[in-house]
Amino acid sequence: MVEVLEDHKCFGGSLKICRHDSKATGTSMRFSVFVPGGEGPFPVLTWLSGLTCTEENFTTKAGAYGPAAALGLMVVAPDTSPRGPGVADVDSYDLGQGAGFYVDATEAPWAPQFSMYSYVTRDLQEAVFANFPGDRKRQGIFGHSMGGHGALTIALRNTGIYRSVSAFAPIASPTRCPWGEKALAAYLGADPAAWRKHDATLLLEDGIGTGHYDDILVDQGTGDSFLEKELKPDLLQAAAARAGQKLTLRMQEGYDHSYYFIQSFIADHLQFHHDRLK
Amino acid sequence: MVEVLEDHKCFGGSLKICRHDSKATGTSMRFSVFVPGGEGPFPVLTWLSGLTCTEENFTTKAGAYGPAAALGLMVVAPDTSPRGPGVADVDSYDLGQGAGFYVDATEAPWAPQFSMYSYVTRDLQEAVFANFPGDRKRQGIFGHSMGGHGALTIALRNTGIYRSVSAFAPIASPTRCPWGEKALAAYLGADPAAWRKHDATLLLEDGIGTGHYDDILVDQGTGDSFLEKELKPDLLQAAAARAGQKLTLRMQEGYDHSYYFIQSFIADHLQFHHDRLK
Repeated sequence: MVEVLEDHKCFGGSLKICRHDSKATGTSMRFSVFVPGGEGPFPVLTWLSGLTCTEENFTTKAGAYGPAAALGLMVVAPDTSPRGPGVADVDSYDLGQGAGFYVDATEAPWAPQFSMYSYVTRDLQEAVFANFPGDRKRQGIFGHSMGGHGALTIALRNTGIYRSVSAFAPIASPTRCPWGEKALAAYLGADPAAWRKHDATLLLEDGIGTGHYDDILVDQGTGDSFLEKELKPDLLQAAAARAGQKLTLRMQEGYDHSYYFIQSFIADHLQFHHDRLK
Repeated sequence: MVEVLEDHKCFGGSLKICRHDSKATGTSMRFSVFVPGGEGPFPVLTWLSGLTCTEENFTTKAGAYGPAAALGLMVVAPDTSPRGPGVADVDSYDLGQGAGFYVDATEAPWAPQFSMYSYVTRDLQEAVFANFPGDRKRQGIFGHSMGGHGALTIALRNTGIYRSVSAFAPIASPTRCPWGEKALAAYLGADPAAWRKHDATLLLEDGIGTGHYDDILVDQGTGDSFLEKELKPDLLQAAAARAGQKLTLRMQEGYDHSYYFIQSFIADHLQFHHDRLK
């Protein structure tokens, strides 16, 4: 059952903040959903957020709902991890609550609650389509930073669900950067073999999902302080080229890692998905 | 001197968070400024925010910078009061810090720091035009709720500064609603005669500023929980009609008092000001 905590009219549609119980995490989870005005069913985009975010950051800061209303797109934005007093955590912005990394954790103390991969691909899907007028056969996924990693890996591994994918400043190869190494080791254990299916660059190298998407759109700011150490879109671009997967990487001059960057190009991404889901 | 605390590229321009010392408040004050790309000088809009807001709410939630960039408008958004450990306050969301009401307080403990009227019309003006490529002769002002009241009253009393004015869900007659009565009594004393110049409806009745603006745009959601008790746009509309001042009040069906309402119509307001400042 989905409980609607807030409901705001917005651009002729409605923006709702929802809470429901997730089997995957064993906790209550929150997400936002924008439902455009007019007659559904609507194509559905799932947005995955970055480190430290809740469902609120994208919802309030991205400026997505004007273009989404104009294009007739539903947009769903979940929280980035299970949360609350009964949920494991550490005093660190890049691990634990707010940093689920869109994997199913196998290691203590994170398993089984930190199962954001199953949450996004299963429980969130069920909650959305049982309660809102989305078209299950016309879905796209996108995200930012940790959520860009989530969008790319989930899209490549779930070609039965999604028909379009894009990302802003994704962690392009989490097996080869400090954020990813820390999180994947904690959630999945020390053996990097278990990490491979959670690395978009390595999935492309392994041919997973390759060819399903006619294009993958990635925007990356050149003024992003995490670019060289954490994000490394050049690795993703090279793997896509080797795999014969079209990928459009746009290096955006001077933009940083913030939602000011995201809002500047969100309309392009919504149009990109719309063109593939209409 | 203006200190730039943050600087983000945004829609081809830049969004800066600034701090400077104000003579009017005797404190450090913050504001945000969006400077569009291209060659200035640009028309300047000042946005005044509502109760509890800082300079951040509008900046992150209004979705103003895409349309502002397209129209070549600078947008300045100050904090709503002086703040900090040396500044008077009470445990109340509608008085004191975060609730300056755009007056110059005459009463203890608020005078002289709570001088947001002088801050907006003098110190903020000086800081903006000394540091950013704005055109002092092409200015508009707008705001929301308490800030809608601020925009209307400051515009009517400062026709030498502004050439356009609009508001979202303004407190249309603060001398006749609980929010206004509480704040004006605290800041200006018990005698309502001193309140009169801070009530847009009464200013119109007194002929202050009447006829300078070819139109005043006001958007008000019909689902706004503060509409009947606090906002009362019908009083403003009637006073404008009696004064021969054109005022376009748009009752927006189902919209509430939140930034989801503001973002839905912000592009209309930016276009309204642009048409009068181009």
